[in-house]
Amino acid sequence: MAAHPTREDRFSFGLWTVGWPAQDPFGPATRPALDPVESVHRLAELGAYGVTFHDDDLFPFGSSDSERAGHIERFKTALAETGLVVPMVTTNLFSHPVFKDGGFTSNDRSVRRFALRKVMRNIDLAAELGASTFVMWGGREGSESDAAKDVVAALDRYREGVDTLAAYVVEQGYGLRFALEPKPNEPRGDILLPTIGHALAFISTLEHADMVGLNPEVGHEQMAGLNFVHGVAQAMWQKKLFHIDLNGQRSIKYDQDLVFGHGDLLNAFFLVDLLEHGPFGGGPGYDGPRHFDYKPLRTENIDGVWASAAANMRTYLLLKERAAAFRADSEVKEALAAARVLELSEPTLAPGETYTDLLADASAYEDYDAEAAGAQGYSVVRLNQLALEHLVGAR
Amino acid sequence: MAAHPTREDRFSFGLWTVGWPAQDPFGPATRPALDPVESVHRLAELGAYGVTFHDDDLFPFGSSDSERAGHIERFKTALAETGLVVPMVTTNLFSHPVFKDGGFTSNDRSVRRFALRKVMRNIDLAAELGASTFVMWGGREGSESDAAKDVVAALDRYREGVDTLAAYVVEQGYGLRFALEPKPNEPRGDILLPTIGHALAFISTLEHADMVGLNPEVGHEQMAGLNFVHGVAQAMWQKKLFHIDLNGQRSIKYDQDLVFGHGDLLNAFFLVDLLEHGPFGGGPGYDGPRHFDYKPLRTENIDGVWASAAANMRTYLLLKERAAAFRADSEVKEALAAARVLELSEPTLAPGETYTDLLADASAYEDYDAEAAGAQGYSVVRLNQLALEHLVGAR
Amino acid sequence: MAAHPTREDRFSFGLWTVGWPAQDPFGPATRPALDPVESVHRLAELGAYGVTFHDDDLFPFGSSDSERAGHIERFKTALAETGLVVPMVTTNLFSHPVFKDGGFTSNDRSVRRFALRKVMRNIDLAAELGASTFVMWGGREGSESDAAKDVVAALDRYREGVDTLAAYVVEQGYGLRFALEPKPNEPRGDILLPTIGHALAFISTLEHADMVGLNPEVGHEQMAGLNFVHGVAQAMWQKKLFHIDLNGQRSIKYDQDLVFGHGDLLNAFFLVDLLEHGPFGGGPGYDGPRHFDYKPLRTENIDGVWASAAANMRTYLLLKERAAAFRADSEVKEALAAARVLELSEPTLAPGETYTDLLADASAYEDYDAEAAGAQGYSVVRLNQLALEHLVGAR
Amino acid sequence: MAAHPTREDRFSFGLWTVGWPAQDPFGPATRPALDPVESVHRLAELGAYGVTFHDDDLFPFGSSDSERAGHIERFKTALAETGLVVPMVTTNLFSHPVFKDGGFTSNDRSVRRFALRKVMRNIDLAAELGASTFVMWGGREGSESDAAKDVVAALDRYREGVDTLAAYVVEQGYGLRFALEPKPNEPRGDILLPTIGHALAFISTLEHADMVGLNPEVGHEQMAGLNFVHGVAQAMWQKKLFHIDLNGQRSIKYDQDLVFGHGDLLNAFFLVDLLEHGPFGGGPGYDGPRHFDYKPLRTENIDGVWASAAANMRTYLLLKERAAAFRADSEVKEALAAARVLELSEPTLAPGETYTDLLADASAYEDYDAEAAGAQGYSVVRLNQLALEHLVGAR
Repeated sequence: MAAHPTREDRFSFGLWTVGWPAQDPFGPATRPALDPVESVHRLAELGAYGVTFHDDDLFPFGSSDSERAGHIERFKTALAETGLVVPMVTTNLFSHPVFKDGGFTSNDRSVRRFALRKVMRNIDLAAELGASTFVMWGGREGSESDAAKDVVAALDRYREGVDTLAAYVVEQGYGLRFALEPKPNEPRGDILLPTIGHALAFISTLEHADMVGLNPEVGHEQMAGLNFVHGVAQAMWQKKLFHIDLNGQRSIKYDQDLVFGHGDLLNAFFLVDLLEHGPFGGGPGYDGPRHFDYKPLRTENIDGVWASAAANMRTYLLLKERAAAFRADSEVKEALAAARVLELSEPTLAPGETYTDLLADASAYEDYDAEAAGAQGYSVVRLNQLALEHLVGAR
Repeated sequence: MAAHPTREDRFSFGLWTVGWPAQDPFGPATRPALDPVESVHRLAELGAYGVTFHDDDLFPFGSSDSERAGHIERFKTALAETGLVVPMVTTNLFSHPVFKDGGFTSNDRSVRRFALRKVMRNIDLAAELGASTFVMWGGREGSESDAAKDVVAALDRYREGVDTLAAYVVEQGYGLRFALEPKPNEPRGDILLPTIGHALAFISTLEHADMVGLNPEVGHEQMAGLNFVHGVAQAMWQKKLFHIDLNGQRSIKYDQDLVFGHGDLLNAFFLVDLLEHGPFGGGPGYDGPRHFDYKPLRTENIDGVWASAAANMRTYLLLKERAAAFRADSEVKEALAAARVLELSEPTLAPGETYTDLLADASAYEDYDAEAAGAQGYSVVRLNQLALEHLVGAR
Repeated sequence: MAAHPTREDRFSFGLWTVGWPAQDPFGPATRPALDPVESVHRLAELGAYGVTFHDDDLFPFGSSDSERAGHIERFKTALAETGLVVPMVTTNLFSHPVFKDGGFTSNDRSVRRFALRKVMRNIDLAAELGASTFVMWGGREGSESDAAKDVVAALDRYREGVDTLAAYVVEQGYGLRFALEPKPNEPRGDILLPTIGHALAFISTLEHADMVGLNPEVGHEQMAGLNFVHGVAQAMWQKKLFHIDLNGQRSIKYDQDLVFGHGDLLNAFFLVDLLEHGPFGGGPGYDGPRHFDYKPLRTENIDGVWASAAANMRTYLLLKERAAAFRADSEVKEALAAARVLELSEPTLAPGETYTDLLADASAYEDYDAEAAGAQGYSVVRLNQLALEHLVGAR
Repeated sequence: MAAHPTREDRFSFGLWTVGWPAQDPFGPATRPALDPVESVHRLAELGAYGVTFHDDDLFPFGSSDSERAGHIERFKTALAETGLVVPMVTTNLFSHPVFKDGGFTSNDRSVRRFALRKVMRNIDLAAELGASTFVMWGGREGSESDAAKDVVAALDRYREGVDTLAAYVVEQGYGLRFALEPKPNEPRGDILLPTIGHALAFISTLEHADMVGLNPEVGHEQMAGLNFVHGVAQAMWQKKLFHIDLNGQRSIKYDQDLVFGHGDLLNAFFLVDLLEHGPFGGGPGYDGPRHFDYKPLRTENIDGVWASAAANMRTYLLLKERAAAFRADSEVKEALAAARVLELSEPTLAPGETYTDLLADASAYEDYDAEAAGAQGYSVVRLNQLALEHLVGAR
């Protein structure tokens, strides 16, 4: 039986998750707005350690300075009362109509300038609140028509935006790192930097590439039919898993933002396994916040909201328990060996071996028995079934 | 009326395309094997300028040296007779059972060594034939179970493989560049480097990153629901569009390899527009071969094979004509301006402007009328409709 | 050059299409509400012949009787002034929170009763306005969890609902037929009657099956990766194509509701061909309204709204012209014959032939040369390429 | 701990599953052919009760009568030795090139006649072996081009084919029922009767509709992004779940045919729950064979083949245990009530109530508090989480 969540589990939630009033493309809100202060208190009671937000979640777009300050003050008080921290802050560059063609990549230059200013202001707040990660989801950076967006120019502007902001953070001496959040589509027909891969590639071109990483989201990759565990592993491999958004998605469709585990459960199990234990062949796992970016179903009232918040954490802990048992099981270890999983950590060339040596090794090619190697079994099913049995608590 | 294809159009085909005998997961071949020599002659007659191949397309896996040499000789003769060139060569690391768990990333180290040797041998041939691009499609690099592949280790091995081969090319003084070909799945449940983005990201970590680029394929990106034009634009932006595979795909399903244009026709139009003219805001297009990587339908006999080869080129030329008219149309130019498409090429910061200057610009934020900016129209539909009307020859 | 739309083209639009203020899951409206009276006038000017609506489009949910009557009166006046007709009416059972778990299939029986009453009231209005089709889109009939909806019971309730309403229409003597509109998902995780097929199957179980047909929508089938032309053909084959929703969708993702033709253009071409000319082998086409159910992009202002309305009609007319040319082209006729397309209209058994006769026909089996039949070509690519060339105006 | 499978569990396998030699679109077989006699023996040892086959699985296409008889004899002996039964038989109308454009719906009439004869001959064998179900998967009935297949005519021919075969079965006095197996695509670009719904709709038009039902397959529906549990529920509701194909699929992509449960595990849990226990509101479950139609991964050798066969059955039994505990849990019962799941079984109209009565019931509409009803919570997440916790063995 999984223990209840504690602060050591480092679970965090966006204010916009539990606070989502449940409007959707075909209907208005079904729940009243939640006071961020109440959310902080309730999340603390449920066992979370952190809370995150977009600027517009905390104070309405267009708030005066004093209104804004008032909202921030109340929020800080709630943090102080509960001990909750703010590990991450992000900016809303997607709701207000001004951003309907994008923020950093709007065709309208004045919008791009406004967007940079809005982010800078919010970076100041993030620093003030002690956040270490600043997420950027460019949900409106994209298009529905291939005629109306010059993607090459858009990527120039995207880079200019991130470079400018990174310079700002560096020169202000803020202890912040950026984490880009990819998504393939919705609300735009096609969004720029649609996957973990595209975002990693983009980052490699940045002036301050070292301080920019990723905030991948389960459902966003699965909306492109991609294996989230593979994507996270590549992000880890490139040392860019700065933050993570946990939720659930069922196949390729609109962005569902289900409770973590309520989508592809097997993939969720292997994700927790990777985050907690690192790759099978060794190497670090993930030590940042376990951040839930989900939406309580529109059918739920406020009780359902809190039940769903708890469900996210409980599912994570259950999977964590099962992953630990999976890793500890001697039969699993034996099966990993039989499947030669660990052999993949061995370099293909021996220490010091060059391609010239390889060319001279007749056993590698001229004398190699490809038929025999092709006839061997990789014992994949057995290993996968062991994992499944651990997942369903049958071992 | 589009002219017939000429060598100046630089159309090329893989031997495995017209030569595909049409076996599929549910049935054996419906066409006899094609002699590569015949393919060379027929493609030349139809107007192609180049032909490409996997080693196994030209000489069977396991051929003796003399058999191999004989096949190569006949092929060279055909090239000489027709004037066809070999702009690209690639290696088959996916058909033989030895590669069933991958080539560069097989869990079995001996397979990885064998794979490297097979590629090196084929690189020699590519250089001998004067190819400038060496494509690597890692179709078996992947898995069906998250338990059976350590993706972090796999990416280490993938990098080791490409680094080793790049060193080989450099030190041999071959004038070759590598082009990685991403694909999300099939034949593996999940393939490593599943999209243009993931491959670009991977390349950024390579020792010889400068000589490694991409060979994106229309259908491969569309199998992940991604916009191929966006992907190609990002590859261009990162100066990595080394080669391209043109074909057709209808939505997210198995890899169809239809004739170019017989899938998403609007996207094909904008692709040709981008390749021929470069981004709307200026910048180079693509000057490499227009390479078709398609499969003649299993329902077709040999006449249908050659009809489909011709259809690929003819569709490209028709789209090229229409793209030229689209770009030249003054109403289109006016619509591009109305949609502010070119304004995206203007930097967001003025020349010399710093973020400090931006912070001091009250017009950018404090005095900015976000409501007015949000109320403007971007005239996207008009522009897209103009494109559609050019595409259907109505303007 | 396509003529401008006329009333004879029978183009109709939903009030909710041009009137969509462009709120979406990630942002509020970007356009002001449109007065239905203005929409009627503008659509008439643009060449439409009809306008359709949900009750809530015309008068807000919860309007008093007199408010409702006032709205209806103004609308009728606009119809009288413009000559526009109301070929179809539908009920909104998806926006108000009361329907968050469904209308006819909500777990809450009182909601189901309320839903039936809301529809009955709207049926009266549809009859009063002379509509001939009453569409039912059950967008909230579904679930996100397989635990929370008894689908067998839900289908019982769905049938009960439609049977009750059909009885009402019959006994009132209204000249209305129902048209169910399938959709696979969004706003629910999974919607009941997700495709044309599921809805046709459901209809076959109804008490008044004869008066219930379909209103299929381009994007809804394509959201499941299904071929819309195939689906419409099956609906025609079962004599159930009562109405149609035309729009555009790009691959499997959220419901885009693009302008007709701005998605899969080739499929749109073949759709228009089927609607206008019927199947290749003969049989009726579609003679109902050409109804556009699309959303003007959120980036557009009111000018873009009307431009997009016009674009729908213009694209339809362009495709209609090209389809007519395709059908009239003697080379196409020859290619259809070569592809044996018309041979499919010949029954497999000869007139009067029984299976006993077939069993006795050695030429059909014992003496049949399956190898020769398997070696023939079906000339599909040539035919498809001819269609593409007609579509792009190259013939 | 789940017991080992026994004959009472009624697990069956196709000869083509364990016997698949693992050729795929990009590579040849990696395993030798399996003797059907060996498969029968091994499946019996593993706990299966039944074995199924296509004609071509048992004797090669084109076998002489005596060869065919010899293969059948050996197979019967193996059945007698093991006690395995043959609950289902099916015909291969998709592998041989003669069927490349379809069987019942090939454009070539002679192919259609040959197909009918091939099926009739196999029906005789099915009857002889005591099968009760005859499956028809029309994998080649479809097209890649909307120009090359008249779908209306194709459905006529499909119906003619099934009607003819049904008449044959009836008049021969065979105790067989047909089960159609839908699939959306692969190996054809679009397959006719692509989903459960389309096939149910088609059946409703048949002369002998009563003896034709469905054989739905997990992965085939999931390839269209559809909820398999919903589809099976509709098939049950229409009393057409004659047989079932269990396997695994991960999102929308090529047909994976993974081990049951190795795809969408939550959906697999609810499927077993529905098959074993019937709908939540009461009604029968499924009492036919639990038939696995999967493919052992191409990476596996013969040991992996048998391990995967065992894994299918073991996963089913584990899910069956968990579903039983889920249904028996009093907290679940309480949560089902809180979610009003059972209330959906109550008719919307009271016994004897007419629409006139409903119109007269002011509490249903005029006095209904829609705001209050819209504010209630449906407690979906709690219920789904309880299911998940049962699935992972945490309760």
